[in-house]
Amino acid sequence: MKTRTKFSLFCALFAVLQASADESLLSDDNIKTAKSLAAIALASDHAHTLVRDLTTQVGPRLAGSDADKRAVAWAKTTLEKAGFDVVKLEPVEFPVWKRKLESARIVAPYPQKLIISSLGFSGSTNGELVAPVVSFTSLAALQDAAPEQVAGKIVFMNRQIERHINGDDYGDAAPIRYRSNTFAKEKGAKALLIRSLGTGSHRFAHTGAMTYDEFDTNLPAAALSRPDADQLERILDSGQELVLGLNLDTEQRKEGGSFNVIADIVGSEKPEEIILLGAHLDSWDVGTGALDDGVGVAIIIGTAELIASLPKRPRRTIRVVLFANEEQGGWGAKQYAKAHAAELQNHVAAAEPDLGAGRIWQFETQVPASWKSLPEELANQLSFLGIERGGNKTRGGPDLQPLKELGVPILGLNQDGTYYFDYHHTEDDTLDKIEPAALRQSVAAYVIISYLLADME
Amino acid sequence: MKTRTKFSLFCALFAVLQASADESLLSDDNIKTAKSLAAIALASDHAHTLVRDLTTQVGPRLAGSDADKRAVAWAKTTLEKAGFDVVKLEPVEFPVWKRKLESARIVAPYPQKLIISSLGFSGSTNGELVAPVVSFTSLAALQDAAPEQVAGKIVFMNRQIERHINGDDYGDAAPIRYRSNTFAKEKGAKALLIRSLGTGSHRFAHTGAMTYDEFDTNLPAAALSRPDADQLERILDSGQELVLGLNLDTEQRKEGGSFNVIADIVGSEKPEEIILLGAHLDSWDVGTGALDDGVGVAIIIGTAELIASLPKRPRRTIRVVLFANEEQGGWGAKQYAKAHAAELQNHVAAAEPDLGAGRIWQFETQVPASWKSLPEELANQLSFLGIERGGNKTRGGPDLQPLKELGVPILGLNQDGTYYFDYHHTEDDTLDKIEPAALRQSVAAYVIISYLLADME
Repeated sequence: MKTRTKFSLFCALFAVLQASADESLLSDDNIKTAKSLAAIALASDHAHTLVRDLTTQVGPRLAGSDADKRAVAWAKTTLEKAGFDVVKLEPVEFPVWKRKLESARIVAPYPQKLIISSLGFSGSTNGELVAPVVSFTSLAALQDAAPEQVAGKIVFMNRQIERHINGDDYGDAAPIRYRSNTFAKEKGAKALLIRSLGTGSHRFAHTGAMTYDEFDTNLPAAALSRPDADQLERILDSGQELVLGLNLDTEQRKEGGSFNVIADIVGSEKPEEIILLGAHLDSWDVGTGALDDGVGVAIIIGTAELIASLPKRPRRTIRVVLFANEEQGGWGAKQYAKAHAAELQNHVAAAEPDLGAGRIWQFETQVPASWKSLPEELANQLSFLGIERGGNKTRGGPDLQPLKELGVPILGLNQDGTYYFDYHHTEDDTLDKIEPAALRQSVAAYVIISYLLADME
Repeated sequence: MKTRTKFSLFCALFAVLQASADESLLSDDNIKTAKSLAAIALASDHAHTLVRDLTTQVGPRLAGSDADKRAVAWAKTTLEKAGFDVVKLEPVEFPVWKRKLESARIVAPYPQKLIISSLGFSGSTNGELVAPVVSFTSLAALQDAAPEQVAGKIVFMNRQIERHINGDDYGDAAPIRYRSNTFAKEKGAKALLIRSLGTGSHRFAHTGAMTYDEFDTNLPAAALSRPDADQLERILDSGQELVLGLNLDTEQRKEGGSFNVIADIVGSEKPEEIILLGAHLDSWDVGTGALDDGVGVAIIIGTAELIASLPKRPRRTIRVVLFANEEQGGWGAKQYAKAHAAELQNHVAAAEPDLGAGRIWQFETQVPASWKSLPEELANQLSFLGIERGGNKTRGGPDLQPLKELGVPILGLNQDGTYYFDYHHTEDDTLDKIEPAALRQSVAAYVIISYLLADME
């Protein structure tokens, strides 16, 4: 190689290095501060204290219930004490459903009690309903069934979901819970039972919402625990007629509501630009909502508190949104998107932890090309926490869906959800299921991303 | 060494070997047959089919209930089909207790629902009882308390048990469940709650019996699930007054009963000499009694069926006893010892699996010195199943205690009970918790011991 050629190559390499240095969107100072906040997070159980207090002092907080009111009061007080610049409540309206009584039993051939949990928006049986069972393993099979096969019977939807780190099979099977009632009703069924959308083998039934399109006219509907669904399957496999007794009493009213609880750490230079950290404040009525989504509430409040503790506000605003009524239709999320439509163009990014309390293992995004190398740079800053870089097609938390549709960039700090659906929507969703070290790691990851986005130039 | 000395040593060694060969109590033929039966056991899921059928076709079978009657009928039919020479029912009388309704809630400072399970022989509250809580961590502390500290209150016994392969800590803590009611009542308490005697962290309360000495006059009493007990502990630790609401309704009647179900494979040479295999047929009313003690029932029936399948009966009698009402005071066991007092001297040995469905890991005994090398010889025949030799102080299954007191030799084929108390006496005691390979190994171990004892010279 000639000397001149060597020199040209050297110059070209220098230019590339220079350009990449020029293009770096994160300053050394930003990175240093973010890492020091993460170090505090990794040594602190403050977020654990938050979810401990929420689950102990409020416990289950079904949307629209008295406990939900107490949860809103707890959140307001907690955020006011936590050093936010603004704390406000924004009303959200929705229909209210309540479980009053539920029991089920095998009447024939082998009498025994079953463990069930009424599904959200379930109707009532008005005393015990006794009817034979017809079973299906998919929505398609139910849709294809002749009405005379279904009429007068209890429809049993029998599909077992499998574990997945992202909870994918739950997502795939969820339409069974949402939609079966509609199809079963069309064909003249008397009630609906589903095998719980759960991965555990413990004897908990997993509740969850059906579509509220048919609020007030739904069939009585409940989920069976896995061992109970296995029991029915064994009897059906033996070829015998299976007759069940079902007694559900629920209460429904069209008018009700709660509040989105919103708190800002107002940016020092670009206060109108917002990094949104979301979680939902409501829970189902059965467990204390430690995993769903108390831990999410704790992660985002803990993150924001760390940033608020800095001597100087970051350039942009950090906004914590505790959404109302995610569980029964994402009412708070829709209301937020509506009430804040005008400022959504200034939402720099949004993130929501709502897949339990596992460690964050992956950083996905769904951001426009204008972000250039930023996602990779952020990912680099997360790698010391054992977090991999994922792609640019993240789904994002449930309360972010209306924002995503309206173009807000979405960040996916993906929690390991392998065991989440063992506990999801059951009595067993309690504080002891949270591993403090995993929670510390999650706050560390959130604080790095949130601070860097809020303070970069 | 001189040649003569060498020769003397050789003679002495020969004598020892000869003596030990002479003393061997098990013949090669016996061992060969036992091993061939074990090989069949290790390849068969017949015992699993038995416990599947018992838990599916009967399910929970509380002593004295209609389901208990169905369990007795199931057992009789199953044993009659299984090739036994004699199948008979022997009546057992006992008081009958029944759970009708139970609920509990925190009234103050933080209202939320609690998950409880009434204890056997609990009284009723006659509507909701609302009272403050006083807590203790041991029976001694409750006994030492001043009456004015306890009077008018709900006593909360807060002792967490730990895992142990033999379930030892359960045994140590059991007096808390049996005896607290008596002491609390003496000091004027209104009701009793105990932290479940369970090792799991799932939200199941573990029921179980109190002493029936005070049947009909017991305080209302229930167990709390571990997460619920943790919740109360957190509130008490905060120094606030804790007020609970408790609503228990139970039914008690002094006259009731069931049957010991007894089946013999009659010995060909010494029919009066009996190897007794026991398990209890009753279960609590909450789970399907798969582990407690459906799997025990399956192990011993499966074992006896294998021996019955041989072309020739062994020399001695193999007796299967499915004891009535172990759970509420060992009534069947006491009745058996009474009814069979005259033949107990001919009970060669007794064994009972009642520690769940884990693999057998240890062979203990409690046998007289007259057994000489037999325990070691039996242990040698178990070693290929991964079973260690334990000592000669086995406790033995619960239904063997009256026999043990009367001098019947006891064998302890000890199951790994590390996880048993996660499920014990809860709704979660269901078929799916049984690992088929562990069950096959257990039957193999039982069949080796049973056959060798039954057929040795």
